[in-house]
Amino acid sequence: MNKVVTCVAPVNIATIKYWGKRDEHLILPLNDSVSLTLDCDQMHAKTSVLAGPLIDEDSVWLNGQIMSIETNERLKKCFDLIRNLIRIRKGENSQEAKWNIRVCSENNFPTAAGLASSAAGYACLVYTLANVFGLVDEDLSSIARQGSGSACRSIYGGFVHWKAGNDDLGSDSTAVQIAADTHWPEMRILILVVNETQKKTSSTVGMKQSVKTSELLKYRVQKCVPERTNEIIQAIMDKNFEKFAEITMRDSNQFHAVCLDTYPPCVYLNQVSHEIISFIHDYNEAIGQIKVSYTFDAGPNAFLFIQQKDLSLFLSELVNVFPSHQPNSSYLRGIETMPLSKIKPYGFKSKDKDLFRYIMVTKLGSGPKCVNDHLLNNDGTLKSNN
Amino acid sequence: MNKVVTCVAPVNIATIKYWGKRDEHLILPLNDSVSLTLDCDQMHAKTSVLAGPLIDEDSVWLNGQIMSIETNERLKKCFDLIRNLIRIRKGENSQEAKWNIRVCSENNFPTAAGLASSAAGYACLVYTLANVFGLVDEDLSSIARQGSGSACRSIYGGFVHWKAGNDDLGSDSTAVQIAADTHWPEMRILILVVNETQKKTSSTVGMKQSVKTSELLKYRVQKCVPERTNEIIQAIMDKNFEKFAEITMRDSNQFHAVCLDTYPPCVYLNQVSHEIISFIHDYNEAIGQIKVSYTFDAGPNAFLFIQQKDLSLFLSELVNVFPSHQPNSSYLRGIETMPLSKIKPYGFKSKDKDLFRYIMVTKLGSGPKCVNDHLLNNDGTLKSNN
Repeated sequence: MNKVVTCVAPVNIATIKYWGKRDEHLILPLNDSVSLTLDCDQMHAKTSVLAGPLIDEDSVWLNGQIMSIETNERLKKCFDLIRNLIRIRKGENSQEAKWNIRVCSENNFPTAAGLASSAAGYACLVYTLANVFGLVDEDLSSIARQGSGSACRSIYGGFVHWKAGNDDLGSDSTAVQIAADTHWPEMRILILVVNETQKKTSSTVGMKQSVKTSELLKYRVQKCVPERTNEIIQAIMDKNFEKFAEITMRDSNQFHAVCLDTYPPCVYLNQVSHEIISFIHDYNEAIGQIKVSYTFDAGPNAFLFIQQKDLSLFLSELVNVFPSHQPNSSYLRGIETMPLSKIKPYGFKSKDKDLFRYIMVTKLGSGPKCVNDHLLNNDGTLKSNN
Repeated sequence: MNKVVTCVAPVNIATIKYWGKRDEHLILPLNDSVSLTLDCDQMHAKTSVLAGPLIDEDSVWLNGQIMSIETNERLKKCFDLIRNLIRIRKGENSQEAKWNIRVCSENNFPTAAGLASSAAGYACLVYTLANVFGLVDEDLSSIARQGSGSACRSIYGGFVHWKAGNDDLGSDSTAVQIAADTHWPEMRILILVVNETQKKTSSTVGMKQSVKTSELLKYRVQKCVPERTNEIIQAIMDKNFEKFAEITMRDSNQFHAVCLDTYPPCVYLNQVSHEIISFIHDYNEAIGQIKVSYTFDAGPNAFLFIQQKDLSLFLSELVNVFPSHQPNSSYLRGIETMPLSKIKPYGFKSKDKDLFRYIMVTKLGSGPKCVNDHLLNNDGTLKSNN
């Protein structure tokens, strides 16, 4: 019997946003995007795979629920692409391509919270399968992309550039690393998880509507994104935080502007999101320099970027402006959250309590990796803690 | 002694939005805009003017407050332009150009409510002065424009097209009537006055920031607005409500998208505005046809367009979804608000009470006109009811 292989894969946060596909089936984007890969220590998807001639059928467990592979087109495609690759590398009659595969996957953060769980999930699935079948040196980003577009960026650590490419078959639509996480070790990422009950349009549906109806998206794709992508890559290489931060904020706002230009409009930011945006601009203005920036995906949660040296002072202001009934020990999660600076020199007004569920502080990470803490037993049964 | 002349001028609501100036001093817009002029019976600015050799100095009273003409550049410009026009028409040494002018003006709706009070106000000032000095057949829209851009559209009734023009001096940046109010007498306009305390960026400051920082505004101006302007003028001529309504909603959303693309972003819509937007799309979808459309200016209040035949049913749903503690007799103001249709077949969920201060129902109007109900006595003193 083969052994269980288990890997973790990270969440990535886009600073130049992916919004709109040029090919729905192959998941080819209309424009380039740029992202930061987060440390797996705080947030990750974890996937265990057992594959072999004795496994009776393909099956996928996600967060304790069995998934139907046949009706889940994207999951099916990842299995098919991996098997195709096995046949290409190991011969048309390779037995391994005929093995059934058992998968168990889970996220260590809320799937429903709009925290890019599918990106981490598909990156983890593809990376783990690649480890099982000895395919880790292949272009895994193209396979992960066909599970969930932005998953292709979670295949690499540090700063990642997903090139839209031109090929109709998507051969040049792959992710590449701009710089490793060690290039800018001072970078910190804060995730403000907003208390939110509202329904939202899924990003798959939203971007389809935008492609169909937003005139501004055309200009964004043709003109704005290419310029910004070059500029932010340069800012990353130069470790020019202010430039990086400004482009990040502008691109988040432009993405949400395109959503609003969609017909009917797609609205992902709520009142709390707007209060965060407003606070960040006020904070930077009070300091007289861009110390912190925000970006928002297709949901109300904020992702903030700040350098380590500025973290303590900012956090003390942040918990002051957005207070919680929880003690800081549970309100603030992740790394370097203590001690808070006692200095609150700008006197921002406190808002209502509990606008956030919690604040997560994390840093850049190095991408997917294998671990020994499995979700499956070697006989293919689920470990009891699942 | 001369007699007091008093006029009223209407509010206008843009369906293709004016956002961005190509000349700050002359108030020349970057793009064409299209508006509907509302009936003066429900909402108007009213201005009384007394001018003559015996008036001791220029003075302007607005809503009971004395204004400083010297420090108010736009007010001063309107006085100067009128006096220039007097000299052009009546000779360089015309005595009338030397007369001092006493002005008393007020709005019959809240100035602070973001209901285009300055458009009505400047249109009224210019129209009244023109009546005093026998200049009513002149291009008053160009003078009103230099008081407040959108004021040029309140000079005409019905449907109005403000052409951006190309001339650096603004000679071709004037408003023209597309069609009179009698062309589409079934058109109704609802104003949902949202309860709101939040500060906002003034539209003057906001549009300046957008011109400076929004890349999407460039595309809107060059590409989107010219196409939409032609399309909506055709829809108005054809009385094609669905076409008119869709373009109106799209252009409102695009204008607010440009505001969001501004750096730092300008946000005028609040959560209630977004709930209105969402409700209108749900309502039209439930009916299976575009029966009602929305537009928002630089504030959270909604302006809705609907045809008279669809008003009663829609109003009954609207007060059901957005209830008030007030009785309908004070919650619903204006025309044709009763009786409400008893049929509520779509079962939309009611939201919290009192999200709106009130709902005003009005119709198209024919533009500024003279009235006999003066705000000044013939000796230049303010009437006591001010």
